Amino acid sequence: MSLDRDKGVTAPAGFTAAGIAAGIKDSGNLDLALVVNEGPNDSAAAVFTTNKVKAAPVLWSQQVLKEGRLRAVVLNSGGANACTGPEGFQDTHATAEKVADVLECGAIEVAVCSTGLIGERLPMDAVLSGVDAAKAALKSDTQAGLNAATAVMTTDSRPKQSWKAHEQGWSIGGFVKGAGMLAPNLATMLAVITTDADVDKGTLDAALRKATAKTFDCLDVDGGTSTNDTVLAMASGASGIKPGADEFVALLTEVCWDLVRQLQGDAEGVTKEIFVTVQGTRSDQDAMVVGRIIAEDNLVKTALFGSDPNWGRIAMALGRAPVDIDPDLLSIVINGIRVMDKGTRGEDRAGADLSGREVTIVVDFGLGDGAATILTTDLSHAYVEENSAYSS
Amino acid sequence: MSLDRDKGVTAPAGFTAAGIAAGIKDSGNLDLALVVNEGPNDSAAAVFTTNKVKAAPVLWSQQVLKEGRLRAVVLNSGGANACTGPEGFQDTHATAEKVADVLECGAIEVAVCSTGLIGERLPMDAVLSGVDAAKAALKSDTQAGLNAATAVMTTDSRPKQSWKAHEQGWSIGGFVKGAGMLAPNLATMLAVITTDADVDKGTLDAALRKATAKTFDCLDVDGGTSTNDTVLAMASGASGIKPGADEFVALLTEVCWDLVRQLQGDAEGVTKEIFVTVQGTRSDQDAMVVGRIIAEDNLVKTALFGSDPNWGRIAMALGRAPVDIDPDLLSIVINGIRVMDKGTRGEDRAGADLSGREVTIVVDFGLGDGAATILTTDLSHAYVEENSAYSS
Repeated sequence: MSLDRDKGVTAPAGFTAAGIAAGIKDSGNLDLALVVNEGPNDSAAAVFTTNKVKAAPVLWSQQVLKEGRLRAVVLNSGGANACTGPEGFQDTHATAEKVADVLECGAIEVAVCSTGLIGERLPMDAVLSGVDAAKAALKSDTQAGLNAATAVMTTDSRPKQSWKAHEQGWSIGGFVKGAGMLAPNLATMLAVITTDADVDKGTLDAALRKATAKTFDCLDVDGGTSTNDTVLAMASGASGIKPGADEFVALLTEVCWDLVRQLQGDAEGVTKEIFVTVQGTRSDQDAMVVGRIIAEDNLVKTALFGSDPNWGRIAMALGRAPVDIDPDLLSIVINGIRVMDKGTRGEDRAGADLSGREVTIVVDFGLGDGAATILTTDLSHAYVEENSAYSS
Repeated sequence: MSLDRDKGVTAPAGFTAAGIAAGIKDSGNLDLALVVNEGPNDSAAAVFTTNKVKAAPVLWSQQVLKEGRLRAVVLNSGGANACTGPEGFQDTHATAEKVADVLECGAIEVAVCSTGLIGERLPMDAVLSGVDAAKAALKSDTQAGLNAATAVMTTDSRPKQSWKAHEQGWSIGGFVKGAGMLAPNLATMLAVITTDADVDKGTLDAALRKATAKTFDCLDVDGGTSTNDTVLAMASGASGIKPGADEFVALLTEVCWDLVRQLQGDAEGVTKEIFVTVQGTRSDQDAMVVGRIIAEDNLVKTALFGSDPNWGRIAMALGRAPVDIDPDLLSIVINGIRVMDKGTRGEDRAGADLSGREVTIVVDFGLGDGAATILTTDLSHAYVEENSAYSS
């Protein structure tokens, strides 16, 4: 059974969701989402941004998630609530209290996520009345999940969902938002993942860390790691089925990968979806470091925007990596053409056809068994346009 | 006495230079330069790229400079001779031998610099006959220096020279090329500096390292460190004056700073000249690391291109730095307006007028006495245009 991008967080049993227009955004678009775990279980896990400047909702949710259980998560677009001081933290706390109030649970069971402009307070009247409206709109149908996925969008051009069922009768669904500031150790990105599998909080936490390491952590659009990044998973146990740990990780990774591919495909100004595979390094970690340096290099990214298989810029970029390199062993293959072969020019670069949307770069260090693949995009006029015109 | 940008390497006594069209570039523009130290002294020093993928001329010149003395340097544009394998190294060697032949010295006294596309062999017939033509054109006048400065240009829009005399009767002159790939620990950049001061090779080497650490190392346009970066200094002693070490470093730093300001002002696609000062860190090194992360952040750079004082992106960028940070002590001042004050919103960002060409950003960590200033530029449509259209 393949992945279904028309379903999301409400597809697994035991979840309701809503996405409403609270008036946080001037545009009147949907801007507040609520996802509720209706049980019977309440296992939860999350991974957060590694940025040292963390938004108030991240500081709050990190505390809440220490318990490993959640009743609900409330999310807003239209404001990141980052760099807002103690007042911003109070705003997050008040939002969680309000959700706890309408759901008749404790605030400690409510995670909060925000996305949008840094440094501005949220319009709390709109947020709090929005929670009432979201509670009233909670449903378990497909539209409710789509509304929630839509309400978290900022510069995203479309909502991004994924769902897949396991043949044993349980499933995993989710949504994600993010289009720029996508980088190492999570993108500017909020993701909510739900499952009706019966998994305890320890299993869920370990599975989420394994899955994000191979998916969200491998996306690097512009080196930016936001103040607000959060990937949150909740398990209802409503299917009554307890999957094996390995098969749960496998399906979770599949859903996360599908969400990441959608982030890559909808990145700001994207005209190329680029896969940078680095292999032959001394370690996987070295390969990851090199892959990110190539993925973040503006000269590489602009060359690819120009459909130019300019391998010299790739060689230049990787030469900056703090890892073992023997230039005489380096090879670079672009879309199947070995343009650099053991330190010098290989096949004619003109043979590498980059006219399509997908570009595959394989760099071989010839030193060991390390390998990693980073997903990135090109640097286009549209990227500059969006990011010079939009305050985010 | 102020800096003179109309004079360069031939302004100090004891140097001749030439810049000619050897036919390396298809355009027929000047593409080969020769700068000769006519003595009586032959002290020389250089700093090179830290990139692990080094071009053949860098590998050659690093060996040659171990002697600390040079008769001449030959430079070409139109090809970087990087990633060209043993054949590329032989081409560099043959070029040095040819120069040694026409100047009647040893190849070990000849440094070689190249700039242009990576991964292609140089047209050696053109290079070698160009050396003959350059030898015939050697002169000590101002035009000869300008010709040499012009012959090394790639995407540079204009030659970049600087000269300043010390009141004691000695002077320092130089030229530089570079417009993109400008980054930590030297830009993609070739610089030749001459002086008629009587300084021995040890003094010259120490002075060059001090001066470049405070000038060339502080320029970071796009994070790229090229395969070919070289800053080379030669001292003829023709003035017969032996300056004090401190006053020599001071004047050398002044000339290097002027060359760096010209690189910043002529960077690819530049519409803003940005000065990022980081202070209050635990160490100067921490401040340098943070300054570079801010200077390389595409979201910061595009916001500045849009004249948007988006301090949230600066806070986001610096939060990724591997240094001590207390978010509650952070302040950010943009063009004199304290937009972030001790971790939260300060004055209204609208008060920061970024309509001019120069932008000053001061980030205060409030933790210690560390400080550094990085020079950078914005990320504009023109940057994307130049770098997607031009193979370099």
